[in-house]
Amino acid sequence: MTKPASILPVSSADVDAAARVLAPFAVRTPLLSSPALDRRVGSRVFLKPEMLQRTGSFKFRGAFNKLSSIPEADRGGGVVAFSSGNHAQGVAAAAQILNMQATIVMPADAPLSKRERTKAYGAEVVLYDRDREDREAIARDIAAKRGATLVPPYDDPLVIAGQGTVGREIAEDMAALGVSPDIVVAPASGGGLVAGVATAIKARFSKAMVMSAEPEAFDDHARSLRAGKRENHRAEGRTICDALMASIPGEITFAINSRLLAGGVVASDAEVGTAVGFAFRELKLVAEPGGAVGLAALLAGHIVTDNKNVVVVLSGGNTDAEMFTRLISSS
Amino acid sequence: MTKPASILPVSSADVDAAARVLAPFAVRTPLLSSPALDRRVGSRVFLKPEMLQRTGSFKFRGAFNKLSSIPEADRGGGVVAFSSGNHAQGVAAAAQILNMQATIVMPADAPLSKRERTKAYGAEVVLYDRDREDREAIARDIAAKRGATLVPPYDDPLVIAGQGTVGREIAEDMAALGVSPDIVVAPASGGGLVAGVATAIKARFSKAMVMSAEPEAFDDHARSLRAGKRENHRAEGRTICDALMASIPGEITFAINSRLLAGGVVASDAEVGTAVGFAFRELKLVAEPGGAVGLAALLAGHIVTDNKNVVVVLSGGNTDAEMFTRLISSS
Repeated sequence: MTKPASILPVSSADVDAAARVLAPFAVRTPLLSSPALDRRVGSRVFLKPEMLQRTGSFKFRGAFNKLSSIPEADRGGGVVAFSSGNHAQGVAAAAQILNMQATIVMPADAPLSKRERTKAYGAEVVLYDRDREDREAIARDIAAKRGATLVPPYDDPLVIAGQGTVGREIAEDMAALGVSPDIVVAPASGGGLVAGVATAIKARFSKAMVMSAEPEAFDDHARSLRAGKRENHRAEGRTICDALMASIPGEITFAINSRLLAGGVVASDAEVGTAVGFAFRELKLVAEPGGAVGLAALLAGHIVTDNKNVVVVLSGGNTDAEMFTRLISSS
Repeated sequence: MTKPASILPVSSADVDAAARVLAPFAVRTPLLSSPALDRRVGSRVFLKPEMLQRTGSFKFRGAFNKLSSIPEADRGGGVVAFSSGNHAQGVAAAAQILNMQATIVMPADAPLSKRERTKAYGAEVVLYDRDREDREAIARDIAAKRGATLVPPYDDPLVIAGQGTVGREIAEDMAALGVSPDIVVAPASGGGLVAGVATAIKARFSKAMVMSAEPEAFDDHARSLRAGKRENHRAEGRTICDALMASIPGEITFAINSRLLAGGVVASDAEVGTAVGFAFRELKLVAEPGGAVGLAALLAGHIVTDNKNVVVVLSGGNTDAEMFTRLISSS
């Protein structure tokens, strides 16, 4: 780091403030260990299972922190968000708690379970064609017409600070165990989660290496971190990680990640499938593909971990029975 | 209670001692909460997810406590156990840690995953026909020939004390939250888990109602608790809860359970399937059928919980992909 972290868009004090806002509503997820996993990778591994979070992913944290910041006078117009699924549920659940109307713009090919669950939180769902339509334009149009507040999925300091509470809890629990994390890996799409996690982890454990994990076909963080500037992912790829399909890191998230991250790792869809199967068989956790990409990189040997203390964020578990069945049966 | 608990075969001090023995080896499983579950049942529910325990079920606790008590001089003969699967893995894993040879007598129709995993811990597996052969006789025969120590699945004070650490951790975590458990439900086959849990819970929260949960077709605890004496289950039943097929409560476990339990609840296989599906979709946990029977009774409305603090032990997650797929697809 050439400049102090205090000049970054999000500080650890912002994460502390988010933790206070979230305390009565978010699940404080545990830090888990698995002797089977430790034996398999030859390191001490700690898992942060955000599938156990309200709505089944970490996204509730950032969404709730953001919505809580909206002044009472502006809440009548409701909120609008675009999301492939987990942010949708996070915003919908946060809006329900805060008695606000939520409208979610979702791709028509998002997993059915994510669409249904978003509606179950009382949100209105507007579908769009991922290949032909601009979801941001649709969302902005709705925001303008209804006077709704747009809730960005990642490129927002309050959203990032909310996701940072994942890292804050990891840091607290590791400190309580008397163990320093050497490596912390978190999935990245727009980069909000890993930016928040890095902010909180580096504040307490300055030597920890924080890394983003992505699907091979959506490797924009890995590429951007190597290049030192925001770059698109390699090609028009497809991946089973429906939660991790952002094509380029966020501006605000990358301002943080380019300063705090040690690099990015990737995993193939096959490796992700293996990780989802491993989580089923050995960890007894339901991970969605995108939520397991860090574990996938670890199991595939893409992270050099020998005798290190490794923390892996499992970011979500919202997957259809059909997809889950396919992955646990074939892996 | 007509007599003080101190005359029972297992005391809370025995559970404390087991906790010290287990501390370096067992996973201290968290106490989880789920806003979706609370909303569904209209109570505050706490889950003790023992599928996150080493070997995927609580059985490691009792097995390790028992094996640790075997004098060094007697360890050379190894251990032998009969089990439908989870006790098998618990004994095998405990023996592996303690460098003892384990032989496990398993029914030929036990889930493949349980057999394979038992072998993976280095144990020798001997199969028997559940309908035609006497597993206890086979195990005793092996014990006599090899000088091995027989490790009973439940009817043993050290095994019960080990399982009791589940209740001890629940009590600790509830106390830390400042919440008193009103109802605690744990699955019962031979009754070792619920006996240990009751011992630990009642020592700290004397007013808590501890209850056994069983499959409808193997309701021997519910019947025995009503009758005040050990009774067989209703009929030659079948159940998807392969872990809960003991036909009568243990003698030692019933001496405890008849004194400490408030009663027993049952759930049908269909209700168990619904619970496994709920755990997949809403809790993101992999529960095996037997592990979910308490949750099944709760979701089916068989436990009166209005505004009470309810703790449900999810006792294991060792299920084949095939069975799991069937349950999450149909529920």
